[in-house]
Amino acid sequence: MKKEKSDLKIPVLDNIVDALCQPSSYEPVLYRAKSHLPMLSGVELQKIVSLLRQALFPGYFGETTLRLESMRYQLAANLDTISRLLSEQIARALCFDCDNRGVEQLSVKSIESRASELALAFLSTLPKIRHLLVSDVVAAYEGDPAAKTPAETILCYPSISVMINHRIAHELYSLNIPFIPRIISESAHSLTGIDIHPGANIGEEFFIDHGTGVVIGETSIIGQRCRLYQGVTLGALSFPKEEDGSLTKGIARHPILEDRVTVYAGATILGRVTIGADATIGGNTWITQNVPAGTKILQTKYVND
Amino acid sequence: MKKEKSDLKIPVLDNIVDALCQPSSYEPVLYRAKSHLPMLSGVELQKIVSLLRQALFPGYFGETTLRLESMRYQLAANLDTISRLLSEQIARALCFDCDNRGVEQLSVKSIESRASELALAFLSTLPKIRHLLVSDVVAAYEGDPAAKTPAETILCYPSISVMINHRIAHELYSLNIPFIPRIISESAHSLTGIDIHPGANIGEEFFIDHGTGVVIGETSIIGQRCRLYQGVTLGALSFPKEEDGSLTKGIARHPILEDRVTVYAGATILGRVTIGADATIGGNTWITQNVPAGTKILQTKYVND
Amino acid sequence: MKKEKSDLKIPVLDNIVDALCQPSSYEPVLYRAKSHLPMLSGVELQKIVSLLRQALFPGYFGETTLRLESMRYQLAANLDTISRLLSEQIARALCFDCDNRGVEQLSVKSIESRASELALAFLSTLPKIRHLLVSDVVAAYEGDPAAKTPAETILCYPSISVMINHRIAHELYSLNIPFIPRIISESAHSLTGIDIHPGANIGEEFFIDHGTGVVIGETSIIGQRCRLYQGVTLGALSFPKEEDGSLTKGIARHPILEDRVTVYAGATILGRVTIGADATIGGNTWITQNVPAGTKILQTKYVND
Amino acid sequence: MKKEKSDLKIPVLDNIVDALCQPSSYEPVLYRAKSHLPMLSGVELQKIVSLLRQALFPGYFGETTLRLESMRYQLAANLDTISRLLSEQIARALCFDCDNRGVEQLSVKSIESRASELALAFLSTLPKIRHLLVSDVVAAYEGDPAAKTPAETILCYPSISVMINHRIAHELYSLNIPFIPRIISESAHSLTGIDIHPGANIGEEFFIDHGTGVVIGETSIIGQRCRLYQGVTLGALSFPKEEDGSLTKGIARHPILEDRVTVYAGATILGRVTIGADATIGGNTWITQNVPAGTKILQTKYVND
Amino acid sequence: MKKEKSDLKIPVLDNIVDALCQPSSYEPVLYRAKSHLPMLSGVELQKIVSLLRQALFPGYFGETTLRLESMRYQLAANLDTISRLLSEQIARALCFDCDNRGVEQLSVKSIESRASELALAFLSTLPKIRHLLVSDVVAAYEGDPAAKTPAETILCYPSISVMINHRIAHELYSLNIPFIPRIISESAHSLTGIDIHPGANIGEEFFIDHGTGVVIGETSIIGQRCRLYQGVTLGALSFPKEEDGSLTKGIARHPILEDRVTVYAGATILGRVTIGADATIGGNTWITQNVPAGTKILQTKYVND
Amino acid sequence: MKKEKSDLKIPVLDNIVDALCQPSSYEPVLYRAKSHLPMLSGVELQKIVSLLRQALFPGYFGETTLRLESMRYQLAANLDTISRLLSEQIARALCFDCDNRGVEQLSVKSIESRASELALAFLSTLPKIRHLLVSDVVAAYEGDPAAKTPAETILCYPSISVMINHRIAHELYSLNIPFIPRIISESAHSLTGIDIHPGANIGEEFFIDHGTGVVIGETSIIGQRCRLYQGVTLGALSFPKEEDGSLTKGIARHPILEDRVTVYAGATILGRVTIGADATIGGNTWITQNVPAGTKILQTKYVND
Repeated sequence: MKKEKSDLKIPVLDNIVDALCQPSSYEPVLYRAKSHLPMLSGVELQKIVSLLRQALFPGYFGETTLRLESMRYQLAANLDTISRLLSEQIARALCFDCDNRGVEQLSVKSIESRASELALAFLSTLPKIRHLLVSDVVAAYEGDPAAKTPAETILCYPSISVMINHRIAHELYSLNIPFIPRIISESAHSLTGIDIHPGANIGEEFFIDHGTGVVIGETSIIGQRCRLYQGVTLGALSFPKEEDGSLTKGIARHPILEDRVTVYAGATILGRVTIGADATIGGNTWITQNVPAGTKILQTKYVND
Repeated sequence: MKKEKSDLKIPVLDNIVDALCQPSSYEPVLYRAKSHLPMLSGVELQKIVSLLRQALFPGYFGETTLRLESMRYQLAANLDTISRLLSEQIARALCFDCDNRGVEQLSVKSIESRASELALAFLSTLPKIRHLLVSDVVAAYEGDPAAKTPAETILCYPSISVMINHRIAHELYSLNIPFIPRIISESAHSLTGIDIHPGANIGEEFFIDHGTGVVIGETSIIGQRCRLYQGVTLGALSFPKEEDGSLTKGIARHPILEDRVTVYAGATILGRVTIGADATIGGNTWITQNVPAGTKILQTKYVND
Repeated sequence: MKKEKSDLKIPVLDNIVDALCQPSSYEPVLYRAKSHLPMLSGVELQKIVSLLRQALFPGYFGETTLRLESMRYQLAANLDTISRLLSEQIARALCFDCDNRGVEQLSVKSIESRASELALAFLSTLPKIRHLLVSDVVAAYEGDPAAKTPAETILCYPSISVMINHRIAHELYSLNIPFIPRIISESAHSLTGIDIHPGANIGEEFFIDHGTGVVIGETSIIGQRCRLYQGVTLGALSFPKEEDGSLTKGIARHPILEDRVTVYAGATILGRVTIGADATIGGNTWITQNVPAGTKILQTKYVND
Repeated sequence: MKKEKSDLKIPVLDNIVDALCQPSSYEPVLYRAKSHLPMLSGVELQKIVSLLRQALFPGYFGETTLRLESMRYQLAANLDTISRLLSEQIARALCFDCDNRGVEQLSVKSIESRASELALAFLSTLPKIRHLLVSDVVAAYEGDPAAKTPAETILCYPSISVMINHRIAHELYSLNIPFIPRIISESAHSLTGIDIHPGANIGEEFFIDHGTGVVIGETSIIGQRCRLYQGVTLGALSFPKEEDGSLTKGIARHPILEDRVTVYAGATILGRVTIGADATIGGNTWITQNVPAGTKILQTKYVND
Repeated sequence: MKKEKSDLKIPVLDNIVDALCQPSSYEPVLYRAKSHLPMLSGVELQKIVSLLRQALFPGYFGETTLRLESMRYQLAANLDTISRLLSEQIARALCFDCDNRGVEQLSVKSIESRASELALAFLSTLPKIRHLLVSDVVAAYEGDPAAKTPAETILCYPSISVMINHRIAHELYSLNIPFIPRIISESAHSLTGIDIHPGANIGEEFFIDHGTGVVIGETSIIGQRCRLYQGVTLGALSFPKEEDGSLTKGIARHPILEDRVTVYAGATILGRVTIGADATIGGNTWITQNVPAGTKILQTKYVND
Repeated sequence: MKKEKSDLKIPVLDNIVDALCQPSSYEPVLYRAKSHLPMLSGVELQKIVSLLRQALFPGYFGETTLRLESMRYQLAANLDTISRLLSEQIARALCFDCDNRGVEQLSVKSIESRASELALAFLSTLPKIRHLLVSDVVAAYEGDPAAKTPAETILCYPSISVMINHRIAHELYSLNIPFIPRIISESAHSLTGIDIHPGANIGEEFFIDHGTGVVIGETSIIGQRCRLYQGVTLGALSFPKEEDGSLTKGIARHPILEDRVTVYAGATILGRVTIGADATIGGNTWITQNVPAGTKILQTKYVND
């Protein structure tokens, strides 16, 4: 009988399973929140962003033609659905690192109620987000000679695509909601090759042309009507460390771009420097110092020898 | 009674809905074509490209093994389906900016008939597109020491992936079909990090290695057997403006690469310059002038101090 | 009667079908393996990677909360499923280029049995893969001041995302399984913009920040605790050719990074050079020679004139 | 060349295609409406019924828990969606038999506008439909000793399942909308084995136990609190014909059941007879005459010889 | 401004929404459990039954060929998944009618723990369920001259289809789990037209030929090797009532069939009568009294006049 | 260490798995074909029937409006797909009971080639099947006073629904293809409650009204223009047995209905009797003898006492 049963086993596989079930193997990355809320769901967050996109640009996304006369009904139900889905994910996010943040064990009830408040607080910023995104659309349309209508930029420009996620993520970040902003940003990063940290503070009418390889750091501040091209980095020079050797968090370490700054492809701007209003930074340049307003920095000449 | 009903409302949500239903909030980006055709559908365009990919490389994509003896039947039905789906999207594209293009209000009937003609005209270029793509496959196979068969490059090389979309988009662009070519190009851009404008004119046996960050502008002309590496830009130096300050459209403003030019990683070539046949442009270089045929331009040396 | 039937034909379409059915048109890319196994399936490989991800990081991916007490059951079934799916794809891969590799016609049976062995051999490396990935998670958490928990990096950091695929692909590559490693790598390349060849040999605690545009070549060797930023290339200087002009395969042609090397954004390191332990390579540099251990290479200064 | 192409054909298949493309083969059932609206969609009608079910019994169907405080938002959007989807199907139904009904060719516009009116007219009956269905739920709960809560009957009783469809179909039928009511009825017939013609007029608190095989004809009239068991037929005795031999339509030819009539399993009641209030019809009986109020008709005795 | 907003409303729709949001309209059927567990999910229960079917008949259902050597792994994971999904639904079922059953408010924790126990208790009956179903398969194969293999009956005979659900439902019913057994039974009823109450006690080797219209009541007892044909009813004669007029629950009111009884099509057996072993009941008969063992009851003769 | 691992086990579950892995438990129903073809797939067969339905009634099923001018292309591809899918299922069916049928072990190759031939042979009957189904549509339209167009009956009448499956299944049955015909018939039985054995031989213009509970046995022969109502049985009186007690197969044991016979609801006709042309069989009758042409058999009168 024993023998019969062992016929239904594959010894090699059993060994692999044994190895992968050793606590020493999985514990360093085992997720163990204090509450029993499930893991944050990337799929749900994608769905939330997709619903938000429909709310922000009615008629562009989703399956059906917009009907103005019933827009209100669909919008209200959409926002209600978002508030429900987002509350749930925020609750999970709040519990995600309970241990790490030294938070005393909150009851599930109080976490859920806090999550609901935060979801509504976020939804209240939607009019502001739409205002900013409309200005980004105008910037994309005016800045690209190939664009024929503003509508076109909403449908397929990576600049609009990444800014929809960023403007959402930035408001969630400003409400101190953990994890979710970063997941939303990385999702746009994956699609566009543009990596904007949710903390970056970006003014109206922002436009990134082509965009692949752009990196904008957490404490960057960008004024109105700025424009970047592909491969531009707004980064930090170095990370200050605490006495114990760990990295210091929360220090302003990325550039400030004042209004109407243009940065051409491949330029690298590092550290808490200020690029003055109306300055132009040439392609492939390497900037680690302040640049006065109105200045034009040209690219490195090539040497042919 | 009133009171009962108000129990079923969430005042905060109502306020947000009110704000987002203000015409001043949504009108700048409201899509309102003259005809009542729905918005262009990204999902449908993806499906069309996917069906085209199956028609161009029979046996590589789709769920089932190719059966040569019935290839003709499946191909004919596939093209018929594409013509139906593409006609519909072209009709939407033609109506999309009726207002902006000062087109007198065309009847839906005449738009649909024009769209059908354009779809067939495009399908007639498929033999040419396949010829070019087969040459691109050969180039990828011969150019990459890691490639073991041409088939492999079709399955997973970003160069082939982006060129399938580009060769399709370029023919649609050449037929003056608006919007659709750009959406198809951006979709490949998102997957590969390679941004080729549908207008770019690219010769046989083209290969891009790695590819992330490559940008090829609208009026670029690339000869036969050229090869690019990651991060190469073929861009414009500046955008000439009309007297009213708006950008002038349609001017040849991107580089010409003659046959057998190689451009190494990170090189930037700007403006309507000509890179002569058999020239080699080194990595990280910055080119804004003509380069004679056969020349080798080396990269900037690094300075260690 | 004839006439009636011809009503059901579209002559233009017939012509296109005729052209695309010309053997001269499709034969150069026709897939014709000796066995009758179907084409490798990208969708199945995606599914396999997704199941592996669940096996490696239990609780992070998939729909449900991890239940520790039944982890073993789900893991065993998961590995069994993977072994079945992977065997099938490996069998297809082994047959894919039978012609090209001069392999005498193997029976389907012997190919399938070889494929099963290889699949199990690969599964046996999973404990090692998990060990390495756990070290990568630690590196990501420690290296990014924005990271709040290791768990967060598993959920959304492109560095972890690309390394999951790479560590899998590298073991498949080391077992001489053709095609599949490259498809798995390109899939991560598409999502992250990071292009790591499956052949690259990468030590523990590896971290890539931002990552877009990174290229790591086939024969690269990277030690422990190294870190790269976006746009870094570890490439080959040139491809040696055989007497017949074809590219020589299998020669060590990419850089060696010893332990604890950091390479900043946009740096290009080419050829079989060695970057010594603890060296730091500045952004936008161009390196084609050995760099001694502990050295700091600074970036090119910009010239403003 | 010719020969090559013929290699890509399967003669037997070609012959079958030829035969099936003979107009004489397909024309008798070819659908050719005057307008170019597509065929009625069974899938869309299923979706509409499913949305209606959610509107009628909030919280029972669909994926999520009902939230009372936002029920109004979801309901309004749901009804708006239903009105859009239903208008489209009604428009198709109105055009479906334009030829047959001698309707002069209506413009698509006027059909669509008529369809919209009818959809809204139908939606206005939803409060009445819910009232009736709630009474049916009460009847099911009170009539079945196995039922533990009214809620249970909504979740799984065939009686409620078929009545949801019938009460919807009957209102559509009363608005003279063609085809759609029957499709909705047949869909419930398929699921429950209960065949109620949309024309049947059924009072409050109706309950069918088990139900398989029940048939209720078009002109049946059923009072309040009636109850049927499986296999009951309320049918017509014969179909009167016109002088030309075709069946006369629209004549009252099915039974009338007054209030509180019970009909046991397998009973057959045929023709325009009246079963008086509070009568009980025994199982397996065959009734073709009026039955006075309060009467009990017993089943045929079995003969054992 | 006000006016603008009202443009986005449809007054008729608002009125319907108002009517449907009247508490008096929806409250009689509003689901309001004491705990906040969601409504029982028909979709989840379908999935559970489908997984059980795979566990009971390995290799017949599901997408892949059975591999004996790894059956154990897949089975263990399958049962673990079922236990998780079923626990959740049982918890919901336990809370579903808390109010009605006078149960003091249980904590969610204790309900979930009770649900887990019940799920495991049910799983422990699987070997018994498989034993009975295997005997039903044998009965179907031996009883139908059209059956060529036992396997065939598993794939498509309604008798096996309904008995899979019944044998599952009956064990759940025996554990006093509310609601779920009935939902599972009704799901088979819908597919097969055979309505077996979960309470019915059915012996080994049971077979129903054709089956449509069969009804088997809650307290029926059926011995071994019995066989029924389509349209057979094992019902109750009447429902005894309590003094308050409500139906008395739990009384034995359906027939007992001893071993090897055959009941032909359309026969109706009512009340707590006993059909003795080896008896044969003819088609279309009406039985309300005991039938001695071995008796043959013939059908009613037809009268032709 | 051991202890740690045992933490990841659930003893009760292990016991159940052990019991269900006992060969004595699963072997009686273990599917073990000689070849290694997978089990017949109900899902694939559903898909095949669905594609056949589209081929038979172009324009009624599937997602899109029929375009006459390209019907030929879609039809050819559809039939090619069906031939591929059906060949595969036929091959599985041929191997399904290799053991039972004493067939010497055929090579997979020869089975596949036989399956291909059979699939094409079946496809060659499609013109005949369409001819018969068109006649059934006419019968349904003319026979039901509620039908407004023939098209309507195709969309939703159970009679057409079941006859599509039957006419397909009957041709497969006539080609001696095992298992598949029955699976296709049972699938229609489940949807309509009408159980027609694939062997039944049914003439033109057949119509079943309502239909639930109808059973038509394997050797039934039905002439032209016959009509049945719900609950009609054409069954066998008894099953003759072989000397060893097993049922004799293949004997003509069901009724013959000559042309233009009508059988009303609930009638039972048993044995190899002949119902003469133009006869009418009343409802609820029980017929076991020949009925002369033109006769009207009335239903049993009910006895009220």
